[in-house]
Amino acid sequence: MNTRQLTELAQQLRVDSIRASAAAGSGHPTSSMSAAELMAVLLARHLRYDFDRPQHPGNDRFVLSKGHASPLLYSVYKAAGAINETELLTFRRLAGRLEGHPTPQRLPWVETATGSLGQGLPVGVGIALAGKRLDRTGYRVWVLCGDSELAEGSIWEAAEHAAYEHLDNLTAIVDVNRLGQRGPTRHGHDLDAYARRFAAFGWHTIEIDGHDVDAVDRAYGEAESTRGQPTVILARTLKGKGVESVQDREGLHGKPLKDADEAIAELGGVRDIHVEAPQPPAARMLHAVRTGHLELPRYEIGDEVATRNAYGQALAGLGTARGDIVALDGEVSDSTRAEFFAKEHPDRFFECYIAEQQLVAAAVGLAARGWVPYASTFAAFLTRAYDFIRMASISGAGINLVGSHAGVSIGQDGPSQMGLEDLAMMRATHGSTVLYPCDANQTAKLVGTMAGLHGIRYLRTSRGETPVIYSPTEEFPVGGSKVLRASDTDRLTVVAAGITVHEALKAAEALDREGIQVRVIDLYSVKPVDRRTLREAAEQTGCLLTVEDHREEGGIGDAVLDAFLDGRPMPRLVRLAVRTMPGSATPEEQLREAGIDAQAIAAAGRLLVEHAVVR
Amino acid sequence: MNTRQLTELAQQLRVDSIRASAAAGSGHPTSSMSAAELMAVLLARHLRYDFDRPQHPGNDRFVLSKGHASPLLYSVYKAAGAINETELLTFRRLAGRLEGHPTPQRLPWVETATGSLGQGLPVGVGIALAGKRLDRTGYRVWVLCGDSELAEGSIWEAAEHAAYEHLDNLTAIVDVNRLGQRGPTRHGHDLDAYARRFAAFGWHTIEIDGHDVDAVDRAYGEAESTRGQPTVILARTLKGKGVESVQDREGLHGKPLKDADEAIAELGGVRDIHVEAPQPPAARMLHAVRTGHLELPRYEIGDEVATRNAYGQALAGLGTARGDIVALDGEVSDSTRAEFFAKEHPDRFFECYIAEQQLVAAAVGLAARGWVPYASTFAAFLTRAYDFIRMASISGAGINLVGSHAGVSIGQDGPSQMGLEDLAMMRATHGSTVLYPCDANQTAKLVGTMAGLHGIRYLRTSRGETPVIYSPTEEFPVGGSKVLRASDTDRLTVVAAGITVHEALKAAEALDREGIQVRVIDLYSVKPVDRRTLREAAEQTGCLLTVEDHREEGGIGDAVLDAFLDGRPMPRLVRLAVRTMPGSATPEEQLREAGIDAQAIAAAGRLLVEHAVVR
Repeated sequence: MNTRQLTELAQQLRVDSIRASAAAGSGHPTSSMSAAELMAVLLARHLRYDFDRPQHPGNDRFVLSKGHASPLLYSVYKAAGAINETELLTFRRLAGRLEGHPTPQRLPWVETATGSLGQGLPVGVGIALAGKRLDRTGYRVWVLCGDSELAEGSIWEAAEHAAYEHLDNLTAIVDVNRLGQRGPTRHGHDLDAYARRFAAFGWHTIEIDGHDVDAVDRAYGEAESTRGQPTVILARTLKGKGVESVQDREGLHGKPLKDADEAIAELGGVRDIHVEAPQPPAARMLHAVRTGHLELPRYEIGDEVATRNAYGQALAGLGTARGDIVALDGEVSDSTRAEFFAKEHPDRFFECYIAEQQLVAAAVGLAARGWVPYASTFAAFLTRAYDFIRMASISGAGINLVGSHAGVSIGQDGPSQMGLEDLAMMRATHGSTVLYPCDANQTAKLVGTMAGLHGIRYLRTSRGETPVIYSPTEEFPVGGSKVLRASDTDRLTVVAAGITVHEALKAAEALDREGIQVRVIDLYSVKPVDRRTLREAAEQTGCLLTVEDHREEGGIGDAVLDAFLDGRPMPRLVRLAVRTMPGSATPEEQLREAGIDAQAIAAAGRLLVEHAVVR
Repeated sequence: MNTRQLTELAQQLRVDSIRASAAAGSGHPTSSMSAAELMAVLLARHLRYDFDRPQHPGNDRFVLSKGHASPLLYSVYKAAGAINETELLTFRRLAGRLEGHPTPQRLPWVETATGSLGQGLPVGVGIALAGKRLDRTGYRVWVLCGDSELAEGSIWEAAEHAAYEHLDNLTAIVDVNRLGQRGPTRHGHDLDAYARRFAAFGWHTIEIDGHDVDAVDRAYGEAESTRGQPTVILARTLKGKGVESVQDREGLHGKPLKDADEAIAELGGVRDIHVEAPQPPAARMLHAVRTGHLELPRYEIGDEVATRNAYGQALAGLGTARGDIVALDGEVSDSTRAEFFAKEHPDRFFECYIAEQQLVAAAVGLAARGWVPYASTFAAFLTRAYDFIRMASISGAGINLVGSHAGVSIGQDGPSQMGLEDLAMMRATHGSTVLYPCDANQTAKLVGTMAGLHGIRYLRTSRGETPVIYSPTEEFPVGGSKVLRASDTDRLTVVAAGITVHEALKAAEALDREGIQVRVIDLYSVKPVDRRTLREAAEQTGCLLTVEDHREEGGIGDAVLDAFLDGRPMPRLVRLAVRTMPGSATPEEQLREAGIDAQAIAAAGRLLVEHAVVR
């Protein structure tokens, strides 16, 4: 395509963006119009992509970080023949594929869900890491960013990571249209301001007029030939470019054009240009996934082993058995024990330093390329990445997250290091699986099981050593639980998980000595929860006591209730959880102060069997 | 103090850090030792601070962003005479004040809780904003950062914000000791790498040897005299400086020294130097808080008004009545309606652009200086700041967070923009208050009430218009609820909040026509929850149906259950919530697809009164 044809294509993308938004009665046409040339040139001359085979291993990868410019993306799909005219006009309709913000759950050409700004570039870094260090099929990763989203810290986590890893297969294209949602950005059209920042972080920078197709073409070529560092193209553009009534004007973000027909006429009318994107080179995945025999670590019953240790050892074993397992760390691998994997499989270990958003985003990017990531940090610090976890669930990304140092039982370090909200956060994540083992053999088995699940999988590990209570041959299906004590005369069921299982067992022994038989359930699968066993226990023992090293909202207590919300009668129920703000203290003191140790369980159990009001 | 005395003081701080950690048997002495000169010089010659009067309006403010270096901070307090020798050795003990990571809940000289890295500088920016734009008593803000934490994106949100606001009252001191927790940082001792980044963001940069007290002193002086931009001092240091066996060595993070006595001898023994910090200048708060009559907006019953609009209008009115109210925006004030406040009170409005971590951190910083902040963005995007919200609760910070665009009912924009996990996240936050109004008058009243509460207050608003159902004179106490329909023959109670209140009322009317009387409760106070009214309704109607525009985990359904977890018999209960992944659709279609509209409520209600299993 020559200059005139590229310009025509750009006008078509504008017109189609306006038409789609007009048909929907909502959407972001002006944010699409600023980047029309950027996308036209990319599609026609640089993006090597087979739209019929989105899984082609040689395909370049494109991420729309400014996800609200979806009309532009769908117009590109139409120009490439991937969708037709009719579908374009189903934009934002119920049950359609063309959502307000693109998601891979609906469209095979979308790598990751966007719409929360500042996430596309970090995920693009993950894909580029896969390309550079693992897949090695030579694909490039192109990310179209908005200028507003450069205010997000996650962009600079990505910038740091990409430059440090010399990701010269990554190009960020920034559509500097000067206007955010409510008004001008901090830096307006000052491209130098952005260039200084990216250059300082180690990127190659190019500044261009984003409406000059030849300049855009040259910039892409320069990016392709730059070695050893990622490139950012800073493109000066106008929001709403090409239509006088909206061009470069405030107050029009996220609004269809008032008079679409007039605007389309001003842009030269509807066109039907079809573009064949450059074809990807023949390529074959190098990671023909080796699947050998899985040797998990085995622990002796009665030994004292921290579940975080079992996690690290099991992950290392899993990595040996499966060539598609990768691990990511937030600069705490000595604490989470991901270091065991790092030592055995350094080629598949990714150090993300203290940047939890990039940690999760890199996992999402690696998963998009077919790898099976385990990303671990302290459970507390996964809260840093909650928006990324939320968006990963919209993507349907298959990632494993592992949070160590759960609960008050970590001891002296105090509340800033304690994961006390992680179960609530992870349970509320759509389609998630939440696992919380209490011993080393159980942990090892669950680490292996996680690899085969869908969606977001979360494993919660503990800092301190706990006794091994299960044999290495025991199985732990997701959605199951273990009844650790039971008799026909049980008057109470204690439901626990992780550290509190051991406290519950001690409490049950104490109550037994008083003549109160207690059932104990190890609820290692917090989501999905074992409704059948819980309901059976409730029917047989009459009342339930849950105990957890977590805030009372959203954790194990709420998970248990989930078994009873079907309109049938519910059991009597009491919940023990962390209700105060802990300080520094020994692990034993912490459990006691929080009222979740054996003594507290026994005390609450006594009241409950006596039908006293417990609160 | 002269050079020799400063050096001696630094050695004392090292020795005391080692002693405190040895007494505790845990802690981070080596991370403390690297910054001993940086703190000695600050305390003795630059920090204008009256330890007897931490609330003195002229006091400089110090934030330990690398919160794990708490032994150093406490050693400084001892040198300043704020704590004594005996207390120093209670480090990390149960019920002591000297926690593993410092918190203002325990110690009056701590501005904000730290321990999650990358948060001290953003909060420091908030304090500096208060100093520069509101308090104007001339205080400086000093923040001691670690080098590892510069990998956190939040640091760069802070860097951007501080430079843009010309915060020349802010100095970041970076203790570049080269070593993170598990090994070397990305940039090691390459001070230039950090300087390039900060300079690109608009900071004045100074590079020094952090163990040369004269160089440190000169750098602080240069920071004090720099106008128009914040200063960062990049100090080359050695972790564990001064003790050969640990100095500049890996694998020793967060560990007490093996032989403390030997190390102390190597450092010249225990000292007892007392330092008088420079006194703050006489100062008076300029914001003598005006408290006038609160004129809240009033809406006519039957009018259609979005609760987000009522939020903006009420906040503007609150700002007129009270001079201590400030508002912060994440570049969506036209959507959240914080723009109404911005127009009337531009001097107390803070635009944080698209940087939600900095948005919440700035609110925490402003609250630390006595201001009453309302920070608003989309509910979905508050997930970006969950770690900051978590840490704010550890600080005991009094901040108001407002999340708009709650739930699937936003319509076409799709799931990336829908707050569906926000209630779970905010309920699990310690000491939080969670409010979710359904009409404009209720919203206005709650906006006013929030200002007087403690801890983290969260208000959830909706995008679409909803009918006004309450009179402007109605009161809505926190912890209360409103029974909107009730009779002696009610067979079911529907509990709703926000948008679903209106669906519940429609469903109740439909069921009434079928001869099924239904009670409807508006649970506007989601936390704390109105236990008495819920229990009464359960006793009188036998069963409860909750319905919410939120994920089923951690929201209104779980909040309702909280009323029944005291060991007494529980009602039959069914929960309606968003269980699928929504796409784009109209608001009405979204409610229908999610199964939380009037029809779904009526259908579930019918089953429940017929004692059918609903799930």
